[in-house]
Amino acid sequence: MDMDAICDRRAGAGPPASARTQARELEPAALLERFRAVRSASLQLVSELSAEDQCVQSMPAASPTKWHLAHTSWFFEAMVLQAFVPHYRCFDARYAHLFNSYYESLGPRHARELRGLLTRPPHGEVLRYRRHVDEAVESLSSAGAPAAQAASLLELGLNHEQQHQELMLTDIKHAFYLNPLKPAYRRSEPAAAHSPAPLRWHDHPGGVQQVGHAGAGFAFDNEGPRHAVLLRPFRLSSRAVSCGEYLDFILDGGYQRGELWLSDGWTAVRNQGWNAPLYWEPNGNGRFNVYTLSGLQPLNPGEAVCHLSFYEACAYATWAQARLPTEFEWEAAAATWSGTLHRADPIGLHPEAADVATGRPEPMCGTVWQWTRSSYDPYPGFRPDAGPASEYNGKFMVGQLVLRGGSFATPPGHIRITYRNYFPPDARWQFSGLRLARDA
Amino acid sequence: MDMDAICDRRAGAGPPASARTQARELEPAALLERFRAVRSASLQLVSELSAEDQCVQSMPAASPTKWHLAHTSWFFEAMVLQAFVPHYRCFDARYAHLFNSYYESLGPRHARELRGLLTRPPHGEVLRYRRHVDEAVESLSSAGAPAAQAASLLELGLNHEQQHQELMLTDIKHAFYLNPLKPAYRRSEPAAAHSPAPLRWHDHPGGVQQVGHAGAGFAFDNEGPRHAVLLRPFRLSSRAVSCGEYLDFILDGGYQRGELWLSDGWTAVRNQGWNAPLYWEPNGNGRFNVYTLSGLQPLNPGEAVCHLSFYEACAYATWAQARLPTEFEWEAAAATWSGTLHRADPIGLHPEAADVATGRPEPMCGTVWQWTRSSYDPYPGFRPDAGPASEYNGKFMVGQLVLRGGSFATPPGHIRITYRNYFPPDARWQFSGLRLARDA
Amino acid sequence: MDMDAICDRRAGAGPPASARTQARELEPAALLERFRAVRSASLQLVSELSAEDQCVQSMPAASPTKWHLAHTSWFFEAMVLQAFVPHYRCFDARYAHLFNSYYESLGPRHARELRGLLTRPPHGEVLRYRRHVDEAVESLSSAGAPAAQAASLLELGLNHEQQHQELMLTDIKHAFYLNPLKPAYRRSEPAAAHSPAPLRWHDHPGGVQQVGHAGAGFAFDNEGPRHAVLLRPFRLSSRAVSCGEYLDFILDGGYQRGELWLSDGWTAVRNQGWNAPLYWEPNGNGRFNVYTLSGLQPLNPGEAVCHLSFYEACAYATWAQARLPTEFEWEAAAATWSGTLHRADPIGLHPEAADVATGRPEPMCGTVWQWTRSSYDPYPGFRPDAGPASEYNGKFMVGQLVLRGGSFATPPGHIRITYRNYFPPDARWQFSGLRLARDA
Amino acid sequence: MDMDAICDRRAGAGPPASARTQARELEPAALLERFRAVRSASLQLVSELSAEDQCVQSMPAASPTKWHLAHTSWFFEAMVLQAFVPHYRCFDARYAHLFNSYYESLGPRHARELRGLLTRPPHGEVLRYRRHVDEAVESLSSAGAPAAQAASLLELGLNHEQQHQELMLTDIKHAFYLNPLKPAYRRSEPAAAHSPAPLRWHDHPGGVQQVGHAGAGFAFDNEGPRHAVLLRPFRLSSRAVSCGEYLDFILDGGYQRGELWLSDGWTAVRNQGWNAPLYWEPNGNGRFNVYTLSGLQPLNPGEAVCHLSFYEACAYATWAQARLPTEFEWEAAAATWSGTLHRADPIGLHPEAADVATGRPEPMCGTVWQWTRSSYDPYPGFRPDAGPASEYNGKFMVGQLVLRGGSFATPPGHIRITYRNYFPPDARWQFSGLRLARDA
Repeated sequence: MDMDAICDRRAGAGPPASARTQARELEPAALLERFRAVRSASLQLVSELSAEDQCVQSMPAASPTKWHLAHTSWFFEAMVLQAFVPHYRCFDARYAHLFNSYYESLGPRHARELRGLLTRPPHGEVLRYRRHVDEAVESLSSAGAPAAQAASLLELGLNHEQQHQELMLTDIKHAFYLNPLKPAYRRSEPAAAHSPAPLRWHDHPGGVQQVGHAGAGFAFDNEGPRHAVLLRPFRLSSRAVSCGEYLDFILDGGYQRGELWLSDGWTAVRNQGWNAPLYWEPNGNGRFNVYTLSGLQPLNPGEAVCHLSFYEACAYATWAQARLPTEFEWEAAAATWSGTLHRADPIGLHPEAADVATGRPEPMCGTVWQWTRSSYDPYPGFRPDAGPASEYNGKFMVGQLVLRGGSFATPPGHIRITYRNYFPPDARWQFSGLRLARDA
Repeated sequence: MDMDAICDRRAGAGPPASARTQARELEPAALLERFRAVRSASLQLVSELSAEDQCVQSMPAASPTKWHLAHTSWFFEAMVLQAFVPHYRCFDARYAHLFNSYYESLGPRHARELRGLLTRPPHGEVLRYRRHVDEAVESLSSAGAPAAQAASLLELGLNHEQQHQELMLTDIKHAFYLNPLKPAYRRSEPAAAHSPAPLRWHDHPGGVQQVGHAGAGFAFDNEGPRHAVLLRPFRLSSRAVSCGEYLDFILDGGYQRGELWLSDGWTAVRNQGWNAPLYWEPNGNGRFNVYTLSGLQPLNPGEAVCHLSFYEACAYATWAQARLPTEFEWEAAAATWSGTLHRADPIGLHPEAADVATGRPEPMCGTVWQWTRSSYDPYPGFRPDAGPASEYNGKFMVGQLVLRGGSFATPPGHIRITYRNYFPPDARWQFSGLRLARDA
Repeated sequence: MDMDAICDRRAGAGPPASARTQARELEPAALLERFRAVRSASLQLVSELSAEDQCVQSMPAASPTKWHLAHTSWFFEAMVLQAFVPHYRCFDARYAHLFNSYYESLGPRHARELRGLLTRPPHGEVLRYRRHVDEAVESLSSAGAPAAQAASLLELGLNHEQQHQELMLTDIKHAFYLNPLKPAYRRSEPAAAHSPAPLRWHDHPGGVQQVGHAGAGFAFDNEGPRHAVLLRPFRLSSRAVSCGEYLDFILDGGYQRGELWLSDGWTAVRNQGWNAPLYWEPNGNGRFNVYTLSGLQPLNPGEAVCHLSFYEACAYATWAQARLPTEFEWEAAAATWSGTLHRADPIGLHPEAADVATGRPEPMCGTVWQWTRSSYDPYPGFRPDAGPASEYNGKFMVGQLVLRGGSFATPPGHIRITYRNYFPPDARWQFSGLRLARDA
Repeated sequence: MDMDAICDRRAGAGPPASARTQARELEPAALLERFRAVRSASLQLVSELSAEDQCVQSMPAASPTKWHLAHTSWFFEAMVLQAFVPHYRCFDARYAHLFNSYYESLGPRHARELRGLLTRPPHGEVLRYRRHVDEAVESLSSAGAPAAQAASLLELGLNHEQQHQELMLTDIKHAFYLNPLKPAYRRSEPAAAHSPAPLRWHDHPGGVQQVGHAGAGFAFDNEGPRHAVLLRPFRLSSRAVSCGEYLDFILDGGYQRGELWLSDGWTAVRNQGWNAPLYWEPNGNGRFNVYTLSGLQPLNPGEAVCHLSFYEACAYATWAQARLPTEFEWEAAAATWSGTLHRADPIGLHPEAADVATGRPEPMCGTVWQWTRSSYDPYPGFRPDAGPASEYNGKFMVGQLVLRGGSFATPPGHIRITYRNYFPPDARWQFSGLRLARDA
């Protein structure tokens, strides 16, 4: 999902939101507790980054850490506080210009590619901004149960901030990688090299399947409406493709064989000089080191391959005489195989944390985002929500591909099997890998 | 469909092609007659263009007329003659380099964006090349019924050449438009200005529907396999959107209202300075003239609007409180409403030729290509054919949108309701308009 | 000199032009004879090019042959006929838009990079345009001696057309080179391979020297005013650098050694992938073939090296422990060594025609244009002429370097030792080489 | 002068440097005192900038403050300490890669346009790096009089650092300007609005004049050799052009009249949308505010106009029926009018600090850099110095124009009348204005 697409979801103003809102329990104390936990987690993630680190922007599609911290606060301010707190005093009226990501309806804004120039407001001022917003939300909540709509928007804001937590990691990783000093985001010991578990194929009978979200819990608007699709029988692999397997593809000339690639992918290979996933670096002995959040480490063949573009995922699948699953095949399989939905591990530092070596069935979620063979189109009956949050998802529904499953860096509790992430086909800086499918 | 994507389809080598081939009657005499007719039609289309006109390339996505004439001949040479004629003598071995469009498996080739530099071979030589190929095909055919596979590839080549016939018109129109003299491709009287027929809505019940091609006639590989889809009830408008209706959108500020647009579309509007369809020119009195194959003419409000990007089609639909149909809705409706499939008129000069004024139900096909809300993804079970023709369609299945229905410039007999044309969302030089849909 | 900069010089309106005009004999019959000869020579140059060949534009800096033919005619029309022929009837009023090169004062014009799209007016029509202009000039001349100012502008137009004659060759050569068929402009036998004459150094004492044009003959405005400069003693080589010598530079790693290059030159080497002069092609045996107006031919070590950028000329000179002469050193030397000013040969087909093998002092002019170490700045006291011709030279006096001496393709009689040609430092498609200098 | 061109001058290795070195007195104690003063001044300049501020890079031509601080230290390390201190221990061997600006002979280096990504080494570490270098230089100096060559290189390093002091101001100003908050570098009261002193013309007789540096004091290699030039009589205006005068040019349509501009300049005006100097902002009342180092302030008509490109300076001069002086005219005049060489004021905050209102002759130096009509070509006999410092100036001698005179931000004592600054003709972020000249 485009950097900003991952930011702001829907606000719940208007009937569709209300409908979804009222369908679920909104317990004020629990919501406030969750607010504190999410807001605190953001600061925890950046605790070892300096003010300089937090200011840098490595490319237009990435944002500075400080900008993420401010933007997620602005989101609460613009969507909740200004709408529901009488006489709310904005922390700084100019911040709407600086920290609005892409909401046309909320006015003009600072150019995305210039976010890295915002040395002012200084880092400390952004922390003060966060506290200002936190206090206002606390007051709003302690003043009695907030209106259902406000509660719904608060919940949206929390999910929004969780999306940015993962982006803070992908973006700082990219910035650090471009620094010749190759600094580490956090120190940790690399996992011991291991082989992946054997890859097995699981059959699914296809047929009419219900997909999309419905029911009580939170979901983004692009996950609905829930509807039936008709699937052919298919097979899905038991785990994500591993680094070792992907290395075989490279050694077999994968990046030199045009027939394996989509036409746009082959153009990207040649124009960008791709010959391995992003962050793989030749180690001089014909193999690779991999730059991770813990710095440069030897390639671990048993880990899930990560930082692939859609093009690379497709080419690998073709080479492996397989294909990518559609998003509906993926979701139908995940619904069937529940109970192994998510890894229990806390947030890891790089995909190495994804253990594909154990032999037990790998969960569908929580290792790497998995590219699907589905363009990011609207579901039948989809309508963007009313209000500013209408711009959260709907307007990005062209030119992107759906990813499913969340990664090791997706905050716990944030992923769902109906969750639709989306990015352009050449994006590689996300924690994106693949899982194979075949016709039955 | 990308310029070249429209060129070369599958060759029929290998089982899938054979299967499709054997399913239909291949009557040698009829095939040869059709060959003569199609080849002759190409020359007829360019009969009023000079050698200079036929050499020019206005942009990388467009090709010179002469290149089209040579490339379609090369296609027969590479796919049929070299494979099925013993000791076939190539007209010029270097032409494979010059006139291969995008077949990686057939070797390196001249850069697409430099096709306009090919003043040599001269025009007359390309005509000689065509005759050389024609004679070889005649010999092959008269030597007895060609093998089923050869016949199948001949038929593919004919459909391929018909695709290029339409492209010759879109491309020369674009080149002439960029000439300040605004020359006309062919002289004709403009239709009298008129109002469109009233727009009506036709209901479709949805449900499980079969889509895609199967059976005896020719189809491209991307039209299959035929398979079932599940549709919600929907409504489809009785005709394409007219120029007059689109003018209302413009006058209502359509190009200034970001909320109507997809995000990428809004970016295109601002970066490209779009404020009307391609070829619309302000006439100084607040209205527009339209550049057509017959030159600059007054806008005719009753004609189908044409030369829209997908982005513009979407924005218009949003403004009209409607949406684009999916390609499956379109096809299901067309299957139901058969009998009015195609206009009877001969090839016209511009969309004005599409009469939307009569009040009778407009045919689904033959006016303007209609953008759908479907990304160009593979059908379930789709596999590109074996052999060089495998590159015809499959490798372009990302980043494009499906158009349905053919235009006034699509050769008679070439269109089908299962036919999937495809182009990137910002393409405007094709004869592309839209038809509206709504949820029931 | 920028493509267009070479086109249009000054018109003679106003005192400076008049002054220069009256200083020289203007004999009507001789002028008319010269007009016929120059106009005819242009057509002679293109006699073997097809209409297609004459329409093509290979890059923004080059123009189609047909455009050159029309533009030089428009120059007479705009500068002479419209100003001095009462009731002159323009051939086509729209041509001022199409064929104005860069004269802001003469109105808006067709974008330079789109000149190759002008398939209309057709080739035959441009020839009719030329005859229309020819007849009008004949009438003007036969109606009695034209006014001095008209005669002066006619002479300017002739020199202008001669500049374009050389450009027609450089531009068609470039276009043909980009065609994989590598067609030849004209067939001729390559000269036998030979060694160059020994390179000798000629001393010049420096001191106060007069440079720039004065006196009776024609000159462009940028050649004046004549003025004194102060030179240090210097040495100049007896001939241009040869292909064989330049090959030594290449084999010595010239294109891999950053220390030999100006900073911008080194950037160009890396960004453009330069590793030899334009038109040199590796022959597979570690040496080179050279694409010439007669097609691809073996490198002839005795010929003058050609198609160098200023950067390459500088790097070669540094490698040879020498430097480029300033334009004033060049001119002072040429003034001293007169009598060997120009080769007697008729126009050749490629630099091979420049015989540097004979041992006799090579003339300063007529082999290859020689880059100097002088930026193209105005002379002291320079003022552009009044009228539209003021835009001929003056406005290009930044960012370009001066070349001196004319090439084998410069029309006979067109060159002077005061002649200042100019091009940007990265231009390579002109017939540009170098001659070495050293401090005494 | 290109950002980096301003960094590193000559090292003094080899005879030419030695020659220049020995020509002047090198008093150890004075040199050390000067070292301390210059190094301290750099830190003083950045004392109010945060670590974030010091890390940002607003465009490829500008560098982060922190990078300037580190690069100037690396220069001492690479040119002096590693060459003259036995067993010198580099602070961090990787810094040569990070902080080498453009010295090909000193190895590969970090891409210029990515300097803003260097959040590591952190700000504090760069300060430690500076102290490490300072201490090593102190030790070197206190160990007895350093060798003449080392002293010469130390002096070069100090002049190099002074160049970067001005660049730190131009670069942070540019970065702050792109921040919508428009922060001020330093707070100060704007000068009261005033009118400029009347502009007068001073005659110079021309003739043979000595230009370039010779003698005892420090100079960069591009200032020599001193040599004679021949000048025509000319007139030079008594002061720089003021903001009020430049405003008249704007109000007279200066940015809409193509005939006033060089061709490349007119292209820049249209492509970049220029309609005023950099940092001028319409105030809504038809006039302008000007962004200064003290923030946005009302335009002061009496101040010297600043932040012009060469193109704008030329167009203004043409409009004023004058021209730019050549660099030799400028220098000859400055030599004549000595005694008023430099403003006595300490470093100011913006050109407003340049008082052009007093009526007394304005000094030639210290207000704004003045574009000359001289391309940056080598002087006769110029040879870059031996050693790494050979890349300091010589390799940039193409495509740039000479500026003379220093600005209010040039450190005191750093300017000379022989000083040649240079930048590309479209550069506007330097403190660049103009002074008019005319033929006598």
